[in-house]
Amino acid sequence: MKAIINVPLKNGVLDPQGKAVEHALGSLGFNNVSGVRIGKQIVLDIDAASKDEARKELTKMCEELLANTVIEDYEINLNDKCESAK
Amino acid sequence: MKAIINVPLKNGVLDPQGKAVEHALGSLGFNNVSGVRIGKQIVLDIDAASKDEARKELTKMCEELLANTVIEDYEINLNDKCESAK
Repeated sequence: MKAIINVPLKNGVLDPQGKAVEHALGSLGFNNVSGVRIGKQIVLDIDAASKDEARKELTKMCEELLANTVIEDYEINLNDKCESAK
Repeated sequence: MKAIINVPLKNGVLDPQGKAVEHALGSLGFNNVSGVRIGKQIVLDIDAASKDEARKELTKMCEELLANTVIEDYEINLNDKCESAK
């Protein structure tokens, strides 16, 4: 089962990387852009009996390792396309 | 207009960060996970007259700055919810 986990910074947490990119875009002439925020996207395959079980496991992984929940949120998207394509 | 740009590594490009995370997940007891790949997700607001124009601008930004097209792909998702919510 394919899982896509988005790990954005929480609202209100300063994003210097995003600010730098925004500034660089401005220097390149893209002045119509604002509020640039940069997060992680983690894609993985997980072996689980059901979507519910996979989601439970992935939540644990996010809490323990994938996201720093002090400053980051996480959002889990499950896609069983790969499973049905077997 | 809100834009979400996903920048994953191209297939075949080695992902040491993903490998490290996969290994760490294994150490934590999550042995049912494979093929971990880590990419960027960029969220920004863009001022454009139409979705088509915004997509054109964003494609340019990806080619020039946001993605390293030698090793990374990019995917642009546009969401005009913010526009209609004004």
